[in-house]
Amino acid sequence: MALDKRDALEFPESDRVFLEPHLPRQDGTTPRSDMPFTTLTFATSLDSALALSPGARTTLSGPQSKAMTHYLRSRHDGILIGVGTALADDPGLNCRIAGVGGYGSEGLIGQPRPVVIDSNARWDFSEDSKLFQLCRQGRGRAPWIVTTLSEPPAEKQKLLEKYGGRYISLQMKNSTGDHHRIDWNDLLLTLRSHGLQSVMVEGGGHVINSLLVPQYMSLIDSVIVTIAPTWLGEGGVVVSPPRRFDGEGNAISAARLRNVKWYPFGEDVVLCGQTQS
Amino acid sequence: MALDKRDALEFPESDRVFLEPHLPRQDGTTPRSDMPFTTLTFATSLDSALALSPGARTTLSGPQSKAMTHYLRSRHDGILIGVGTALADDPGLNCRIAGVGGYGSEGLIGQPRPVVIDSNARWDFSEDSKLFQLCRQGRGRAPWIVTTLSEPPAEKQKLLEKYGGRYISLQMKNSTGDHHRIDWNDLLLTLRSHGLQSVMVEGGGHVINSLLVPQYMSLIDSVIVTIAPTWLGEGGVVVSPPRRFDGEGNAISAARLRNVKWYPFGEDVVLCGQTQS
Repeated sequence: MALDKRDALEFPESDRVFLEPHLPRQDGTTPRSDMPFTTLTFATSLDSALALSPGARTTLSGPQSKAMTHYLRSRHDGILIGVGTALADDPGLNCRIAGVGGYGSEGLIGQPRPVVIDSNARWDFSEDSKLFQLCRQGRGRAPWIVTTLSEPPAEKQKLLEKYGGRYISLQMKNSTGDHHRIDWNDLLLTLRSHGLQSVMVEGGGHVINSLLVPQYMSLIDSVIVTIAPTWLGEGGVVVSPPRRFDGEGNAISAARLRNVKWYPFGEDVVLCGQTQS
Repeated sequence: MALDKRDALEFPESDRVFLEPHLPRQDGTTPRSDMPFTTLTFATSLDSALALSPGARTTLSGPQSKAMTHYLRSRHDGILIGVGTALADDPGLNCRIAGVGGYGSEGLIGQPRPVVIDSNARWDFSEDSKLFQLCRQGRGRAPWIVTTLSEPPAEKQKLLEKYGGRYISLQMKNSTGDHHRIDWNDLLLTLRSHGLQSVMVEGGGHVINSLLVPQYMSLIDSVIVTIAPTWLGEGGVVVSPPRRFDGEGNAISAARLRNVKWYPFGEDVVLCGQTQS
């Protein structure tokens, strides 16, 4: 079964070249020794929407861009999403590039670790969740679920651990009632200490917008955004960081990118750059 | 004074080539004999904002993109904006490309006609408005102001006509109280009947979003959008058309483009395409 290539995606060598300068180093070294190389990557419409609504399966970008996402996953140790995306999409969160573990080779080489931010352990996964189906097929890793609970639900913990996953308990600062804000510093330090040398932050909107703030922006090593030539229309799930103001209370641009490159890619465009600190 | 080249912008021949297939034909013929060639063009941030807030001078795109806008103006008979933009920006609405009338040659050759949609004739212009300053300098044309009033304010009409501008009275359908919706069909037919063979719709958000609806989208011959690698943040003036639904009430993508080309241009990218009907 491990050599099964059904559903495998091809991402040709010629397309890999432009991405290379924007990816974690092949030798595994990282800009900061205590932090993973962190890539922020997602696909939006022209009106900056990830999806028509939370949970709506929205086909935005073309097949080439889809294969690119899976290639990017093969180049990161971990892929990170928020619980909203896990609840809405029942995502597979594996890598389907031809040649990785489960798609042409033995073991799980090239399969990233899914990391789900779920402060209150809301995600009600089961043996039937797509992610665990893929685990059983040898086509993906079980998730790490980051939660603020010091004692996560025992039943779910058992299921997670059966497949090699785990809960990771983390204090989240600025907690107000049920609302926990991610402390990206803590989170990334923790993921590195658990062995992830590189992490790709994929979504959803809430997670992305929480990272694009002055406090955390410098933790991002690389930004890779795909834009599709479509307007989804008002009311979508939108990437737009919190408003920023200067010392005199005037609104200023929330986040600028530097070292910017644009790569036309099928019908879409891929923007690569770095955040400005 | 007509040969004065101060403030003139250069837009090199090499940059004009990629735009040519997306512009009105040089021989002046149009796809429909009763309609102007209509180009929708504007610049946004990654989060689809035209500006930080209504009236905020927001520098989004680089100098190359600014010169491009002025080149596009030189290629259209008319440039159209909503009254919101006129009120907020006190815009010049002329063309500063080196060689056009007022910027290196005599007369007003290459200077587009500003068209301002102002249903209730709210715009309180005066001799000091930038647009009329440019008229006096021989560097721009006086505006046509499209209004629903059959008798526009006499004082303002006098000022307008002194500079060669005019009010154009137009019924706007779907009027509800003070709120008038542009009937783009009527509007463009009227502008053509007044002699404009080509019109460039520049903004603001309200005007652009009112055009990106199924009823009117097919009137657009060309879409040229510049995207800057910046997130302005929540609360900006956003381009995002009204939400669309299919027959079963499911949200669908509001507008797709076809024949899409992406041109990296300095730090920005320029998207050229056509609306899908």
